[in-house]
Amino acid sequence: MDGSDTRRGLPAVHRRFASLHRSESWVGDPEAFGMGAAVLLGDLCLAWSDEMLSTSDLPADRLLAGHQVYDQMRTELMGGQYLDLLEQARGGGSVERALRVARYKSAKYTIEKPLHLGAVLAGAGQEVLDGYSGYGLPLGEAFQLRDDVLGVFGDPSVTGKPAGDDLREGKRTALVAMALEQATPAQAAVVRRHLGDPHLTADGVARLREVIEQTGALRRVEGLIDELMDDALTALHAAPLAGDAREVLAQLAIAATARAT
Amino acid sequence: MDGSDTRRGLPAVHRRFASLHRSESWVGDPEAFGMGAAVLLGDLCLAWSDEMLSTSDLPADRLLAGHQVYDQMRTELMGGQYLDLLEQARGGGSVERALRVARYKSAKYTIEKPLHLGAVLAGAGQEVLDGYSGYGLPLGEAFQLRDDVLGVFGDPSVTGKPAGDDLREGKRTALVAMALEQATPAQAAVVRRHLGDPHLTADGVARLREVIEQTGALRRVEGLIDELMDDALTALHAAPLAGDAREVLAQLAIAATARAT
Repeated sequence: MDGSDTRRGLPAVHRRFASLHRSESWVGDPEAFGMGAAVLLGDLCLAWSDEMLSTSDLPADRLLAGHQVYDQMRTELMGGQYLDLLEQARGGGSVERALRVARYKSAKYTIEKPLHLGAVLAGAGQEVLDGYSGYGLPLGEAFQLRDDVLGVFGDPSVTGKPAGDDLREGKRTALVAMALEQATPAQAAVVRRHLGDPHLTADGVARLREVIEQTGALRRVEGLIDELMDDALTALHAAPLAGDAREVLAQLAIAATARAT
Repeated sequence: MDGSDTRRGLPAVHRRFASLHRSESWVGDPEAFGMGAAVLLGDLCLAWSDEMLSTSDLPADRLLAGHQVYDQMRTELMGGQYLDLLEQARGGGSVERALRVARYKSAKYTIEKPLHLGAVLAGAGQEVLDGYSGYGLPLGEAFQLRDDVLGVFGDPSVTGKPAGDDLREGKRTALVAMALEQATPAQAAVVRRHLGDPHLTADGVARLREVIEQTGALRRVEGLIDELMDDALTALHAAPLAGDAREVLAQLAIAATARAT
């Protein structure tokens, strides 16, 4: 949902349509055309995903229950995405708000609700759903925090994005909020000067990384990821699941939060 | 679906969010914030409209049939909107393509498919659906053509938009395509010079209107609207409908295509 799939080496859809506009020498602004086409394609995918669920030939009662989860998921996601926009616009500064964005945008949408959807379609009971929430919400937050760390410290050959890409974009993450919370005036000045500078140099990246490490923000986020992972795995082990389901979900948790820096 | 409700005197959603951004002195580009928020709100409405249908408590078999119409409508609409984007980017020039845009974007989405949806939810048979297509498709095209005429010749006190607004936006409509088809080199030069000029003056509007009248495009579009209305009303009278339904739809047809210039 961040409008980019550059991590897989492809330009985002709006860029591809903008390129098409340019290469055909069409009339008007290529960027506006790209954006319009991308929004329509997104709308089409949103409609098609719903259509695929509705026409899946599942029994009517399960489909009905599944649709309730699906509807709630979509609403939460749009809310989370808006909270994210708002947090970026406000210039961040609140760890609590950044974590709330992670919860709605990533934890619910990426992990908890997809598990609920599968569970409900398979006819699982409330205990399984509760177990999935206990596992999915902390794991989803940990996943987002790992993404935040990789966006600053990640190896470009692994992430597929330039080093410090989130810094250049000026992303207001929990990691950045934690750094600012503990920053000295001099460190805060470094953040103000460099964060969000589209022409940020390798030296600027290094200085920002230094602040994030020296303020203890990196250590704090890594500690939080560990705690959240513990919570997720504890809930997973207590959930009434078959052994192989538990095993696969434990592997998923590790893959979703691995350092790989 | 054109991102604007200025005809009702309100700024479009993206403008309102951009204003909020400005008045709060937030970080970043107000226009980008407005656009992002508007896209999310659109996605939310798209999801909610579907949720409203799914939770309408209608009998399962009718809901299923209704959803098929609804799904097809959404896909056609996104296709029509993209065809419109494409036609604007290509700089127009084809009457046939402009009419195809009108068919997908307006005729199907605005009239035919909503009638089908209601019919199917009410349990109507194929003959009613066919009657609605016979009425809805030509009426919908006539509605779009009337909108095109109003965008050029409409009275601002009636349309709520500045005079010649479509000309300033450079909209590539069937009306404009017809004018270009018959234009002399001098008339074509007037169109090239003025169409899409955001600072178009009242004098420029008058010159473009003159070309659209003198090339016979206005007369041709009015003739086409009349033909389409005839087709729509003929189909309406042949459709197996109760008398009051027929009466209401005849009134709708008149309201949707009235000159009001």
